[in-house]
Amino acid sequence: MAGNTFGNIFKVATFGESHGAAIGGVLDGCPSGIEIDFEAIQKELDRRKPGQSAIVTQRKEPDTVEFYSGIFEGKTTGTPIGFAIHNTNQKSHDYSHIKDSYRPSHADYVYDKKYGFRDYRGGGRSSARETASRVVAGAIAKQFLSDMKINAYVSQVGAMKMETPYQELDFSLIESNPVRCPDPNMAAKMEEYIKEVRKEGDTIGGIITCVIQNVPIGLGEPAFDKLHAELGKAMLSINAVKGFEYGSGFAGVAMKGSAHNDQFNQDGTTKTNHSGGIQGGISNGMDIYFNVAFKPVATVIQPYQTIDKDGNFVQTKGKGRHDPCVVPRAVPIVEAMAALVMADFSLLNRTIKANS
Amino acid sequence: MAGNTFGNIFKVATFGESHGAAIGGVLDGCPSGIEIDFEAIQKELDRRKPGQSAIVTQRKEPDTVEFYSGIFEGKTTGTPIGFAIHNTNQKSHDYSHIKDSYRPSHADYVYDKKYGFRDYRGGGRSSARETASRVVAGAIAKQFLSDMKINAYVSQVGAMKMETPYQELDFSLIESNPVRCPDPNMAAKMEEYIKEVRKEGDTIGGIITCVIQNVPIGLGEPAFDKLHAELGKAMLSINAVKGFEYGSGFAGVAMKGSAHNDQFNQDGTTKTNHSGGIQGGISNGMDIYFNVAFKPVATVIQPYQTIDKDGNFVQTKGKGRHDPCVVPRAVPIVEAMAALVMADFSLLNRTIKANS
Amino acid sequence: MAGNTFGNIFKVATFGESHGAAIGGVLDGCPSGIEIDFEAIQKELDRRKPGQSAIVTQRKEPDTVEFYSGIFEGKTTGTPIGFAIHNTNQKSHDYSHIKDSYRPSHADYVYDKKYGFRDYRGGGRSSARETASRVVAGAIAKQFLSDMKINAYVSQVGAMKMETPYQELDFSLIESNPVRCPDPNMAAKMEEYIKEVRKEGDTIGGIITCVIQNVPIGLGEPAFDKLHAELGKAMLSINAVKGFEYGSGFAGVAMKGSAHNDQFNQDGTTKTNHSGGIQGGISNGMDIYFNVAFKPVATVIQPYQTIDKDGNFVQTKGKGRHDPCVVPRAVPIVEAMAALVMADFSLLNRTIKANS
Amino acid sequence: MAGNTFGNIFKVATFGESHGAAIGGVLDGCPSGIEIDFEAIQKELDRRKPGQSAIVTQRKEPDTVEFYSGIFEGKTTGTPIGFAIHNTNQKSHDYSHIKDSYRPSHADYVYDKKYGFRDYRGGGRSSARETASRVVAGAIAKQFLSDMKINAYVSQVGAMKMETPYQELDFSLIESNPVRCPDPNMAAKMEEYIKEVRKEGDTIGGIITCVIQNVPIGLGEPAFDKLHAELGKAMLSINAVKGFEYGSGFAGVAMKGSAHNDQFNQDGTTKTNHSGGIQGGISNGMDIYFNVAFKPVATVIQPYQTIDKDGNFVQTKGKGRHDPCVVPRAVPIVEAMAALVMADFSLLNRTIKANS
Repeated sequence: MAGNTFGNIFKVATFGESHGAAIGGVLDGCPSGIEIDFEAIQKELDRRKPGQSAIVTQRKEPDTVEFYSGIFEGKTTGTPIGFAIHNTNQKSHDYSHIKDSYRPSHADYVYDKKYGFRDYRGGGRSSARETASRVVAGAIAKQFLSDMKINAYVSQVGAMKMETPYQELDFSLIESNPVRCPDPNMAAKMEEYIKEVRKEGDTIGGIITCVIQNVPIGLGEPAFDKLHAELGKAMLSINAVKGFEYGSGFAGVAMKGSAHNDQFNQDGTTKTNHSGGIQGGISNGMDIYFNVAFKPVATVIQPYQTIDKDGNFVQTKGKGRHDPCVVPRAVPIVEAMAALVMADFSLLNRTIKANS
Repeated sequence: MAGNTFGNIFKVATFGESHGAAIGGVLDGCPSGIEIDFEAIQKELDRRKPGQSAIVTQRKEPDTVEFYSGIFEGKTTGTPIGFAIHNTNQKSHDYSHIKDSYRPSHADYVYDKKYGFRDYRGGGRSSARETASRVVAGAIAKQFLSDMKINAYVSQVGAMKMETPYQELDFSLIESNPVRCPDPNMAAKMEEYIKEVRKEGDTIGGIITCVIQNVPIGLGEPAFDKLHAELGKAMLSINAVKGFEYGSGFAGVAMKGSAHNDQFNQDGTTKTNHSGGIQGGISNGMDIYFNVAFKPVATVIQPYQTIDKDGNFVQTKGKGRHDPCVVPRAVPIVEAMAALVMADFSLLNRTIKANS
Repeated sequence: MAGNTFGNIFKVATFGESHGAAIGGVLDGCPSGIEIDFEAIQKELDRRKPGQSAIVTQRKEPDTVEFYSGIFEGKTTGTPIGFAIHNTNQKSHDYSHIKDSYRPSHADYVYDKKYGFRDYRGGGRSSARETASRVVAGAIAKQFLSDMKINAYVSQVGAMKMETPYQELDFSLIESNPVRCPDPNMAAKMEEYIKEVRKEGDTIGGIITCVIQNVPIGLGEPAFDKLHAELGKAMLSINAVKGFEYGSGFAGVAMKGSAHNDQFNQDGTTKTNHSGGIQGGISNGMDIYFNVAFKPVATVIQPYQTIDKDGNFVQTKGKGRHDPCVVPRAVPIVEAMAALVMADFSLLNRTIKANS
Repeated sequence: MAGNTFGNIFKVATFGESHGAAIGGVLDGCPSGIEIDFEAIQKELDRRKPGQSAIVTQRKEPDTVEFYSGIFEGKTTGTPIGFAIHNTNQKSHDYSHIKDSYRPSHADYVYDKKYGFRDYRGGGRSSARETASRVVAGAIAKQFLSDMKINAYVSQVGAMKMETPYQELDFSLIESNPVRCPDPNMAAKMEEYIKEVRKEGDTIGGIITCVIQNVPIGLGEPAFDKLHAELGKAMLSINAVKGFEYGSGFAGVAMKGSAHNDQFNQDGTTKTNHSGGIQGGISNGMDIYFNVAFKPVATVIQPYQTIDKDGNFVQTKGKGRHDPCVVPRAVPIVEAMAALVMADFSLLNRTIKANS
């Protein structure tokens, strides 16, 4: 409601600004008895953290998570899991270029208008730094959902689009390159292109595709909390996301119903999967797949004109070490949000029949 | 949580199956003192109802709403507004073709699996009939939001796409044709095409574009309840929707940041609006615009093979009077859901500063 | 949030004013597959309705509930259950004595201040008529919770207190008298007393005791949503309730810990039950019991002075057919709210362990 | 839902076990622009902390809170406030007496049954240590509600009851003695009594009275979220609480309506205040007052018999430094929970009229 809680039963409340003392959260409703693999959680954070490759921002943030509660003798206790990541990169920066002026296509202006003032350091709460808390919670959700396989990857950078359908990809190649594209040839071209864009001091958008496999039938709560509606909200809540489509998506618009309908096999599976694994807002046991569109990040290292608080034009210039393309680092965030949604609906689904 | 409530403060709980006694809902949190224009509400229902033109289903449903509470002497009292639309079309149909078998790309199969059994008459709760309740609640939200202008229209049918940007359209033409496309030439072609598709016994998808104008700055509750994330969820919860994008959307992926960034004017407005009126999840006062992709509806009037409950193949055939293309009737639903989201965030925004 | 929804998963939204067209609600989250006993629901409504005996209001309201959805072939489908009770007692009354003046200890004054104006007919939303919707939802909850036994009864009227502990009572006698006190001698005295109070044109308070038996271990969600905290909220939300205590309650304050502690038997049951069946906010399998205090209702049939909207003193007089003592009719309401709480926690409890 | 979040808009999620690394929480929805008095927050924690006087537990816990986010340049930013209190008292204790056996009238048994196992160290999540997080959040709520005056005090210990009505008390004396009773004579007797009980190795219950003054008219959200219903839930969620009553409470039961009704003055105030400042669930501008009953804490330093996990009887003995009477330290907790409720309803009340 006040916007910083996600989920109904398996739910996380997050806190933290880019340059405050710490970011973190409270994960409430996580079932008891899950053996926690702490290394796996840290590994997810490492996939998201800055400085991991030549095509992402070169800031250094170790992003080490501390757990404060809810885990005892290596297992979740069913009580809330408090966690924090202390910020180590808080040295006094020069914020004069953003303190009193508004960067175009950033949240500076609207935060000032909505809240009356803002923590301007590094974007404050509107910084994508906040998503590290999501990755922690999502990593625990993944461990709860150990039967499901959630794989996200970069399928497009700028206009460079990988056309191979996910069924023909080897997901084990996703981590083999810094772009996180499972097609090594395409990945190399994307990497080259991102480097060029960075040299120009510019940025470029991209698309992440996510595939969820081994999904039980029955997840999703119509009429409003349809499975794909919550997945859509989850993805759209990630910084820089501008669009979401699942199954046949926008392309399905041009198909006729007779071609679009997924015919049944005798075991209830379907011959095609234009539905993207979801019928009427409920998982049907087929693979769920969806695309998430990310805009080019707004911080460009080029001079530009903007306005200050008093409405005067000022000339300024992006600084610092920013991402030329956000999608490689956003892959674990997409997976984390997907895991949070699936965990929540898995728990809700236990409540649906009288005798279960 | 159990999925049939939408909104946080301005919130509606809906009920009703396609062929039950009635559908309806409870709208709670609607502020007191709004003068209700009952004719305007009925007019929205009439835009959604079957039988209104030659290109929609020819079923007859008067869809007259009755209000039970929450309105006194013509004004909202601040107490919950109960309402119902009695179903008049309940005559005993022949459901033998769907009672024991599953229609492809319908929710029949997943409802049976999730709930153990289902009300199979006309699709039960998974029928788009449920959206009439949304239209009632949304029509009240519109009256609360009288300063905002919410206009939706059909911008694509099948592969037929209207390329005119919304700024060049005359929204008063939307209702001038049965397709609800404000470009009369395009509308005529779309209408022709839909009639052809209907003759084939087939269906086709489409896109609805929605524009929200006169939006105050500050609506939206990051990090998770971003304005566009809730709009996205709202749209994706509508039957047959497969995708959502706002502002530059999927096309923005291929743009560079330097071109995508919206440069400020001195008054805080921006020269371009790739952001779609939303920065960091908060409205910035510019027009909000987004696209909603609808798949071709699954009910085709052609023979097809499917399975029954026991996994046997059965041969069957769609019957009845269904929509060849759902987007013309979905226009008021898109507007209603948009109004519900904007009303909720308007109320939440009142709570954000200490001295207000 | 806007206050007319109760419960998290098994949740009901209610609507309706005393003299509007209808009252009713939407029960969402009720599991599928419950065989509904409609007569049992109507019976609960009849226990609450006016005119059932000489010691309650003599108004006539048949209180017949209509179900609109969520039940098919006699069983719940898992989709929302919409229901309404049409008001038949809407003839034009004379409301001049309350339209422009405020009855003492009624909600007239605060509704006007909070909402700007009010539906003054019969108390509007603040009338206890609203509780009929709770009784419908609670009656369904009872059918879901068929293993638990929920019995409420009148244990005190005015200063007349029945001292017999619940263990020694025969609950089958509760319905044997109009007071709903299972001790026939005490019931006769209470009835006599209520009749005297009514003759004086006055009213009197009372206490309802509720006992819940056959409760599984584990219901309740600390730290905030403790089982007794939700039971307390549920009871305090009923019109005219001023206090709630469970187990040893207020009397337990004067006990020493060594005497108050409930010693274990080997099977995990306890020798005493000062805890009232709840430890740390979670049911321990022993009987849950609690007391609910009702004030004397504010409508007295005596002349009194009060103020009008402009702050002038006015002389007026209660009219109509009101209850001299509210507790006999409140017994089914207490049971209904208890059932709603227990149903909700029963569902939540299914989500608590990783492998269940 | 999973029980560790309190409030709707002004809402706090808490985490932490007695002997884990830290306890803390996320306060979301706190309005922007509140100047934070950090000393005042710490002072509230000091009122709750162990070791502050001779009649409370002698454990040493500095209870120093660290804020991680949501406050910038001394003011709240409107973003979530993350905070933690690190536990310094984590040295390895001997828990053999509670690890495998269940203390009577503690939550040990039900946690094991509900969650499958438990963090047994010092009571884990069921320890009252958790309430320190509530005190932090409540202290911020108090600063938001600077116009309201919230004063709680001990009005009864064991059977020793202070009969003076709150209007005749000097609240500035509350902190003048370790019992937190504003009547110095009564306080001295209570203190003496608590010392005696402690010498016996026993414990005793008590009552805290809370008074809220300068309350605006209109707070509370009927039908279910009545102001007193939420206050009741808030209080009942505090460890060891067994009862709640407001205004005339349980004693009001024996009054007649003609005597109980609060007659109006011309300015809308009332001559008496049996209503306790709340009519129909909404504040009427008069003082709100209520009583909260605390049982004697279960940890007695006396030998007792109990059962182990396998149902065998074992002989054991309470250890450590526990509170002989919990009410003196619970005073700031009652105030904190009251502040959280009032802050939440203050924000909700802003949303209630169309033009505000």
